Amino acid sequence: MAVPATSLPPLLKDELDIVIPTIRNLDFLEQWRPYLSPYHLIIVQDGDPTKVIKVPEGYDYELYNRNDINRILGPKASCISFKDSACRCFGFMMSKKKYVFTIDDDCWVAKDPQGNEINALEQHITNILSPSTPFFFNTLYDPYRKGADFVRGYPFSLREGVPTAISHGLWLNVPDYDAPTQLVKPAERNTRFVDMVMTIPKGTLFPMCGMNLAFDRSLIGPAMYFGLMGDGQPIGRYDDMWAGWCCKVICDHLGLGVKTGLPYIHHSKASNPFVNLKKEYKGIFWQEEIIPFFQQVQLPKEAVTVEQCYIELSKQVKEKLTGVDPYFTKLADAMVTWIEAWTEINSGSSKTAVANGTPKVSKSK
Amino acid sequence: MAVPATSLPPLLKDELDIVIPTIRNLDFLEQWRPYLSPYHLIIVQDGDPTKVIKVPEGYDYELYNRNDINRILGPKASCISFKDSACRCFGFMMSKKKYVFTIDDDCWVAKDPQGNEINALEQHITNILSPSTPFFFNTLYDPYRKGADFVRGYPFSLREGVPTAISHGLWLNVPDYDAPTQLVKPAERNTRFVDMVMTIPKGTLFPMCGMNLAFDRSLIGPAMYFGLMGDGQPIGRYDDMWAGWCCKVICDHLGLGVKTGLPYIHHSKASNPFVNLKKEYKGIFWQEEIIPFFQQVQLPKEAVTVEQCYIELSKQVKEKLTGVDPYFTKLADAMVTWIEAWTEINSGSSKTAVANGTPKVSKSK
Repeated sequence: MAVPATSLPPLLKDELDIVIPTIRNLDFLEQWRPYLSPYHLIIVQDGDPTKVIKVPEGYDYELYNRNDINRILGPKASCISFKDSACRCFGFMMSKKKYVFTIDDDCWVAKDPQGNEINALEQHITNILSPSTPFFFNTLYDPYRKGADFVRGYPFSLREGVPTAISHGLWLNVPDYDAPTQLVKPAERNTRFVDMVMTIPKGTLFPMCGMNLAFDRSLIGPAMYFGLMGDGQPIGRYDDMWAGWCCKVICDHLGLGVKTGLPYIHHSKASNPFVNLKKEYKGIFWQEEIIPFFQQVQLPKEAVTVEQCYIELSKQVKEKLTGVDPYFTKLADAMVTWIEAWTEINSGSSKTAVANGTPKVSKSK
Repeated sequence: MAVPATSLPPLLKDELDIVIPTIRNLDFLEQWRPYLSPYHLIIVQDGDPTKVIKVPEGYDYELYNRNDINRILGPKASCISFKDSACRCFGFMMSKKKYVFTIDDDCWVAKDPQGNEINALEQHITNILSPSTPFFFNTLYDPYRKGADFVRGYPFSLREGVPTAISHGLWLNVPDYDAPTQLVKPAERNTRFVDMVMTIPKGTLFPMCGMNLAFDRSLIGPAMYFGLMGDGQPIGRYDDMWAGWCCKVICDHLGLGVKTGLPYIHHSKASNPFVNLKKEYKGIFWQEEIIPFFQQVQLPKEAVTVEQCYIELSKQVKEKLTGVDPYFTKLADAMVTWIEAWTEINSGSSKTAVANGTPKVSKSK
């Protein structure tokens, strides 16, 4: 078993799964070995199920391909995207842990300005385990960080904060731009290391990127649905955005926190902007109406669980966004199917029944 | 005349005043000479008017003491605090320029992590002259900065941004803590340089510190009132907080932006926490009710100027906060007086009449 850089036991070792959607061999995990190898991986194989995905030796993992998804979910498998990294949310559903970290296979270990490798997962865990402050802005940012605090004028009644549901990490090198911006600025690279974590205020939406993301499944898991993207759908590259908008309004409603900022990963390559434009162009129109929709969403007081909130949201999506495109009726239905599948998989009785049946399961360390 | 560090003409030289409240000689301006000497200063002398304030040679300035304030405003001088740095807002009123930068006399030139001096005013001007993005969060922060842009999922219709009304700068070394935090953490110093400017989202309040602050008078000037503090008042050290809450709700209503982050100044000394506690303790209670008040404030559509918004706000303060303490009736009345005085001083006819009558006026460079 790989030993982490410090001699302390790895944080949350038995309480966190790492979810990776992929279409290729996971060589990138070699570089992450000191940081990620103590944790269990859930690999969701995107696309052709006959392809064999190689996982570096020493990692403990379970792997699901499309055949597995169909077998486990039956007709409800329709809610899981095909040929799109949106399929990663199947891994969120299958996890039995409290926390999830998800990372893309083109993300590498970044370095801080002093040249030290950044342990992204450790920073996510720090973010998730300390409270958030969504109700009032702290001008020195994260008040719980060493050397910082709440500034003058910050109400004392708000200083305990609220539980953190989501930690959104950032990317050095290739920034997460849309296709038009990629086309206009093909050479732009993010070189600015901003040494900061902050809570995104209540009532503010943000573009959540799924490349480097951690969350507390027990707090927000059922809302972390990446929608219908890719094969057979009119849209792609909005999977994480959709999840982010849904999660944020539900976190706001339930009094949970969303953080953004550190940790950085090194994002190695820009995807093809021409291909991206084709995937995105409907989303670029639609988001002009989707975002005002999410900005005005009101969830009823009676919705006190994430599942209840999400079902309510699906109704409002169907009612208010179907006018934008019939796709949103299909998406709203898939949101309901997702919650049904989540509930089934995560109910006590079915937990053992869904154990992965592929030959690559749980390679021991 | 002092020559700025670059050979370019100083930015906004004839459009910006620097307002400094003080009780002592302004020796700190020696260190700021390369950055601030091209600009006109408005010095508001706090406390004893017989004391002579020395201004370093080569600075162009006008200076107002309490006698000047009384002479110029007559009975309306009651709205200007005495023996409190809140009196700085008199300088905002007297300025004839579009922009104001205000700085405390215990603030020094900070250095960035590379050891270079930070030209705080230049950064404020950059912040003020570029748009703000209050309606949606950009995860790479200021999208107008070199090397940055809007990320994937940011609506294109919002990428033009809105005019920036306020630039709130930060402090290295002594952080702006309240008295209880000062008492608990007397040795804490802010050493974290966060290389970032961001827009504070619409609907989010923040604790605005008056130590290192710039704003566009033409956009938000009349709301930049620092309230009734100090001598004869039950509260101190909430002057800038009050201004910040009022300005933020008015900026949100009028579609204007507020930025925070860079530039840093070096804040040299912590004020006495015991004295501060005495000044602050009512504010510490009151802010628990003031902030919910500001969070729910709705300004009517008919209020389309800052003055109209501010008068409306004064009515709501009187109606909803007088129950907290009778002080708020007095403050609400002072808010009205302030707008009357602002209007009088800034109307065309009176502009020449109010020229400063002290012997220290407009020393030429």
